Amino acid sequence: MIQIGVIGGRVASDWHLEAALTAGKLIAEKGGLLVTGGLTGVMEAASKGAKSAGGLTIGIVPQADKKSANSFVDITIATGLGIARNSVIAHTADALIAIGGEYGTLSEIAYGLQLKKPVVTLKSWDIPGTVTAKDVDEAVSLAFKLAISTLATEEGNGGL
Amino acid sequence: MIQIGVIGGRVASDWHLEAALTAGKLIAEKGGLLVTGGLTGVMEAASKGAKSAGGLTIGIVPQADKKSANSFVDITIATGLGIARNSVIAHTADALIAIGGEYGTLSEIAYGLQLKKPVVTLKSWDIPGTVTAKDVDEAVSLAFKLAISTLATEEGNGGL
Amino acid sequence: MIQIGVIGGRVASDWHLEAALTAGKLIAEKGGLLVTGGLTGVMEAASKGAKSAGGLTIGIVPQADKKSANSFVDITIATGLGIARNSVIAHTADALIAIGGEYGTLSEIAYGLQLKKPVVTLKSWDIPGTVTAKDVDEAVSLAFKLAISTLATEEGNGGL
Amino acid sequence: MIQIGVIGGRVASDWHLEAALTAGKLIAEKGGLLVTGGLTGVMEAASKGAKSAGGLTIGIVPQADKKSANSFVDITIATGLGIARNSVIAHTADALIAIGGEYGTLSEIAYGLQLKKPVVTLKSWDIPGTVTAKDVDEAVSLAFKLAISTLATEEGNGGL
Repeated sequence: MIQIGVIGGRVASDWHLEAALTAGKLIAEKGGLLVTGGLTGVMEAASKGAKSAGGLTIGIVPQADKKSANSFVDITIATGLGIARNSVIAHTADALIAIGGEYGTLSEIAYGLQLKKPVVTLKSWDIPGTVTAKDVDEAVSLAFKLAISTLATEEGNGGL
Repeated sequence: MIQIGVIGGRVASDWHLEAALTAGKLIAEKGGLLVTGGLTGVMEAASKGAKSAGGLTIGIVPQADKKSANSFVDITIATGLGIARNSVIAHTADALIAIGGEYGTLSEIAYGLQLKKPVVTLKSWDIPGTVTAKDVDEAVSLAFKLAISTLATEEGNGGL
Repeated sequence: MIQIGVIGGRVASDWHLEAALTAGKLIAEKGGLLVTGGLTGVMEAASKGAKSAGGLTIGIVPQADKKSANSFVDITIATGLGIARNSVIAHTADALIAIGGEYGTLSEIAYGLQLKKPVVTLKSWDIPGTVTAKDVDEAVSLAFKLAISTLATEEGNGGL
Repeated sequence: MIQIGVIGGRVASDWHLEAALTAGKLIAEKGGLLVTGGLTGVMEAASKGAKSAGGLTIGIVPQADKKSANSFVDITIATGLGIARNSVIAHTADALIAIGGEYGTLSEIAYGLQLKKPVVTLKSWDIPGTVTAKDVDEAVSLAFKLAISTLATEEGNGGL
């Protein structure tokens, strides 16, 4: 099962929330597993979108307690790691879609690139190595396509 | 969904492997989500058992790479954290069932107890605070029962 | 520089606190670097002892904030990792001395043994693979001796 | 003791290595503790510079083994955490100086900013919220000045 990470802020604009909702829905429709940080904002919107299409959602939260996840998360990975959990999201996703986001999202983008994972962005950080999508449809299509080709060639090296 | 962790060695006796297989099967039959460390031995046997009953399996691996998980893991959480991933298993499970195991399992038992999670043991470490089960059936029944009552009273505090 | 970890509870009996104070002092006198979890109880007493003998003290705290360390810690490693920081203590120490302690200490003992580090205990958990010392002097002597011989032969393997 | 983190690539240009060497020297001369990731390139050059001025150096390495640190590191924190150790560097430093660097450095910059730590850059990533220094002298002066004022006001919140 292709594991697609959607990353972005706990607080987000209506545009970003709408994009996350659609991204989650499209990921589920394509048979992908949605991986997020499990909290509010973009993470919650993407999870809600995935559930609306019958998808399965994973939330990898920084807290020690499963109850910190939003209500659209099916399976909560409670890490207790604080912001170090950002690295777990990057390791777990086969590709990342960044929708807006602040510094936490930037750390996830950086980790994704360090791990040679495809990172598609939508009105997010402009970092060399990421792929800018023009809309949500393209972002999700690119994430799947790039995830599949990366899994096939597998350059991953743990970032070390 | 109740998340039951089955922990134990990468190398295990036939008795322990058989117990893990049955535990995984029973957890799936009761509608639980199986959480393991995703590698070989007890982790693989439990996952195989859960899949034989149509259950869903999570493997939280120490490696950076999803491919390190055994073939009965549906969803791999690649942590890249080395043995610190043991703490993620303890945080994520609502209850732990320890089947045999070496020092890695002991660290998971310790974390589970520190986090006030129920820890049921089957021919494993004898640590005060754990509950010794007489057979696999009892271990799984106890794990569900104690997980449900702990989730209801919720004493969890992140271990700090 | 030999790095000796002293582990034990945040709350401890007078006996254990006195032992930790002496252990810290002896470690500093022998030219060792003291590594602790940086908080109260045994960790603070050991750090106080080391400072009384002019030693250098490291505190590896679970919190995100340096200010959580006790006042006898010279250098605070703020991990923000919660209880996963226990694994960092075990990795960083060349040998561990466990003085009493609860479940957190048990997880550190387990990690130490998994990493093939010498683990000396003083009225602490009785776990196969640890070395029981009859008093503080012996505990510190054994920790240095075993650390040096382990560093020489180096069986370490990251616990994986 | 002010803890200044110098971050940058394992492979770096002569300009960046020279800058790191000088930065390490200046940090030691000002009585600061140097914190790095403990490996080669910028990390090694900064540590060498600090040692040339009699400073103390900490290396927080991703590996499980102390021996992975470069020879100018006095105290090695072996995390075994892989690239999640980047978060420990950001938590531990009172201010960060980024000298060049690739994606790993970017993740540390992002974490630093998320934790509201001062992040000074020298021919490195251009990220809003960082402070660009015109040369090494200015970078080190700014890092100390901003670290001291941040410690005084303490807005830190663990990034959560």
